Amino acid sequence: MSEPASEPRDSTLDLNPKFDADGLITAVATDAATGELLMLAHMNADALAKTLESGEAWFWSRSRQRLWKKGESSGNVLRVVEARIDCDQDALWLKVDAAGPACHTGERSCFFRRVENGKLVRG
Amino acid sequence: MSEPASEPRDSTLDLNPKFDADGLITAVATDAATGELLMLAHMNADALAKTLESGEAWFWSRSRQRLWKKGESSGNVLRVVEARIDCDQDALWLKVDAAGPACHTGERSCFFRRVENGKLVRG
Repeated sequence: MSEPASEPRDSTLDLNPKFDADGLITAVATDAATGELLMLAHMNADALAKTLESGEAWFWSRSRQRLWKKGESSGNVLRVVEARIDCDQDALWLKVDAAGPACHTGERSCFFRRVENGKLVRG
Repeated sequence: MSEPASEPRDSTLDLNPKFDADGLITAVATDAATGELLMLAHMNADALAKTLESGEAWFWSRSRQRLWKKGESSGNVLRVVEARIDCDQDALWLKVDAAGPACHTGERSCFFRRVENGKLVRG
C-alpha cells in the first residue's frame, strides 16, 4: 500500500493497515447472504494484498507460518463480496460467498457451538 | 472454566478457551437484529468471566492494560443475546443489543468504511 498516511487511521480514507508486532491484522468473514460469522483468522500484508487483488480470501497461518488461500485444498474458497476495515485499521471484515463449509471440522461456520451456563451447546 | 478438558477443543462441549501468549482471546460483536459487525476487541479470562456472568460485554484493553466494560463511560453497553465460540476456542462471537454507537468515533459500527480499489469509502 502506499506511504503511511499522516492522517489518523480512524478518519482517513487512505488504507493504512496497522499490523501488530507479528505483522498481522485480524480478519473475520461473514456470510454475505445470512450475516452468519463463518471464521476468524489473520492476514499479513501479502495475504491482504492477495485478497484485495484476487477477490478471494487469503490468510497467514500462524501455526504453519505460511500464506494460505482459504479452500486451496478443500475447494471451499471464500469469494469476497465486500471488504470493510475498522476504525484503527487493525481488523478487516469480509462479507463473502462461501463455496462450502468454512470450518475444518466440516461445519459451515467455525462458531458451531454456543456458550450456555459455562458449557458449550451445539447448534 | 474448570480443569482443562482432555478432549480436543474443536469437539468438546467443555468451555476451554485457548488464551494466547498475552492471555487473550479475540471477541467480535455483531448486532443481534441486523447481523452488522459492530466491533472487534480482546478478552482475558476475567473479561470473559464477567461477560458471561453479567450478560454485558467486558474486554481487556491492550493499550491501557486494563479491564473495561464496554459503555462504562459512554453508556453504550452491549447486552449479550448469545455467545458462541469457534472451533479452536480462541475466538468468541457475541450477538448483542447495542445501547448506542459501538465505535469511539460515534459511528454505530467500527467498520464504517469499505475498501475499494485500495482506498476507503465511507458508508
